[in-house]
Amino acid sequence: MAASLPRAPVSSSSAAASPGSRALLLRRRGGGPGRCAGVTAAAAPGWRRRGARPFQAVSVAARSAGSTPGEVAVDPKVEAILNSVKWDSKGLAVAIAQNVDTGAILMQGFANKEALSTTISTRKATFYSRSRSSLWTKGETSMNFINVHDIFLDCDRDSIIYLGKPDGPTCHTGAETCYYTSVYDALQGSKPNQDRQVATTLYSLEDTISRRKEEIVSEGSGKPSWTKKLMLDKQLLCSKINEEAGELNQTLLENEDESRTMNEMGDLLYHAMVLLRVKGVKMEQVLEVLRKRFSQSGIEEKAGRNKS
Amino acid sequence: MAASLPRAPVSSSSAAASPGSRALLLRRRGGGPGRCAGVTAAAAPGWRRRGARPFQAVSVAARSAGSTPGEVAVDPKVEAILNSVKWDSKGLAVAIAQNVDTGAILMQGFANKEALSTTISTRKATFYSRSRSSLWTKGETSMNFINVHDIFLDCDRDSIIYLGKPDGPTCHTGAETCYYTSVYDALQGSKPNQDRQVATTLYSLEDTISRRKEEIVSEGSGKPSWTKKLMLDKQLLCSKINEEAGELNQTLLENEDESRTMNEMGDLLYHAMVLLRVKGVKMEQVLEVLRKRFSQSGIEEKAGRNKS
Repeated sequence: MAASLPRAPVSSSSAAASPGSRALLLRRRGGGPGRCAGVTAAAAPGWRRRGARPFQAVSVAARSAGSTPGEVAVDPKVEAILNSVKWDSKGLAVAIAQNVDTGAILMQGFANKEALSTTISTRKATFYSRSRSSLWTKGETSMNFINVHDIFLDCDRDSIIYLGKPDGPTCHTGAETCYYTSVYDALQGSKPNQDRQVATTLYSLEDTISRRKEEIVSEGSGKPSWTKKLMLDKQLLCSKINEEAGELNQTLLENEDESRTMNEMGDLLYHAMVLLRVKGVKMEQVLEVLRKRFSQSGIEEKAGRNKS
Repeated sequence: MAASLPRAPVSSSSAAASPGSRALLLRRRGGGPGRCAGVTAAAAPGWRRRGARPFQAVSVAARSAGSTPGEVAVDPKVEAILNSVKWDSKGLAVAIAQNVDTGAILMQGFANKEALSTTISTRKATFYSRSRSSLWTKGETSMNFINVHDIFLDCDRDSIIYLGKPDGPTCHTGAETCYYTSVYDALQGSKPNQDRQVATTLYSLEDTISRRKEEIVSEGSGKPSWTKKLMLDKQLLCSKINEEAGELNQTLLENEDESRTMNEMGDLLYHAMVLLRVKGVKMEQVLEVLRKRFSQSGIEEKAGRNKS
């Protein structure tokens, strides 16, 4: 991205505010509520921990009585947050979008005050485009919004994480994330490949299992592989899952050491993920189920319902 | 971090290179191999997918015959990578360090050519400190290095992920990551709390389970909770794990729909994670076990050994 001077990120108009109001007034593009009009904080499910409720008091639509059209009152608490960020000399801070369920880093851009304020209120990941010198809500063209569940600042307050759930692929190329060029692969002579996404351990394992499935389809059984053998024999796969669950339990009941527990859990997870692949289910979907239980009645309530 | 003009990131000295050499020469601090001396690419296990081998040909120690002391020859392939990055007007690009096992974003800094080159060769996450105008290898003071397993560039080639395993807490405050200030918590009046780390779904679940364990210790049994009940009754916990494994299998054997599979896997994962907590084992340790199986003999070989 080409660096260029952004327009002044915040145009305050204290004269227009009602007397005594501490509200910061932000002027939005076109004077309206922006391209995310109609998307409210309440529409996005909150990702909550430790009893925190989703913050809904901040509203881009809530104009102070004395403000002029096109100006939006920002809650003083939001103003305090915005002012606590160490914006650089261009009024920007790094903003990283991360998938709340998988942890995948989806993209990285920059935010100015207005972009962060908009993200806080609309819960759609919004950036400041340095090349276009304008606010940019990811998904405003592709409709692949990133629905923000929480926002984190770093210890220096100059770096921001938008933790959210993407509606679809994030990269303009159609790839799931923008990071698909491995430096070490390139040094081995490989060309960038959108299938070679940056992936942490769980998703690399899932990817490996998926490739075994593809090999079965494309080559018949092909090169021998334990994963393929499991996929082709449902009874074997299920008996292994039962066996690994039993061995995990045994580490508790017989007070085996921690390393046994780690290994048996690894075995159980791997075999269960083979079953997921056979069923066409992704770990991300499983994690989404768990997250939604949290935010509805809680995992414990769900797990205990009619079972205890 | 205060923005300041970095020193010229790369001091090339073509005169010192052997005739015809395309090597880029980088001058390192103090003329030596840096504070990470002795740490070689070979020391860090490679995180590999799709048959890629860890790249070991790039060596900071491998000086070209004609170079002067303090200058280091960089492999032409590395040079090509370095030149493909869209460095900004200050010679910098954003560099994000991510935990290869958990996906946690550990910290974000900036890299210049020399920092990226050093990271490629030493496999220790290295940044350019704008405030100190110098190269900075994370861990050079604290010894909490971030051991880089792979490096990814984004589609625009102006953003870098260092995917690695931290030796210890990354933040200078002692927190696991630098991101522990939730904007929505702050808007509710909560003060930043290092225990309130940015966390994706799996680790939020793990955190919730851990808090139930702490409640048992601090309050006796306290408020009723399914998680606590499981933790206090090993037989119940193990019977639930067996039951959930059986229900997951049933979705395959009886061809139930995908949503049943997602839910049963969620149940199994939750109950197994309660057992992990009772045993004092973290998901990160389980994932590390799985990753190491990949890079040694492969998950399939391990899983199938003596079992098929």
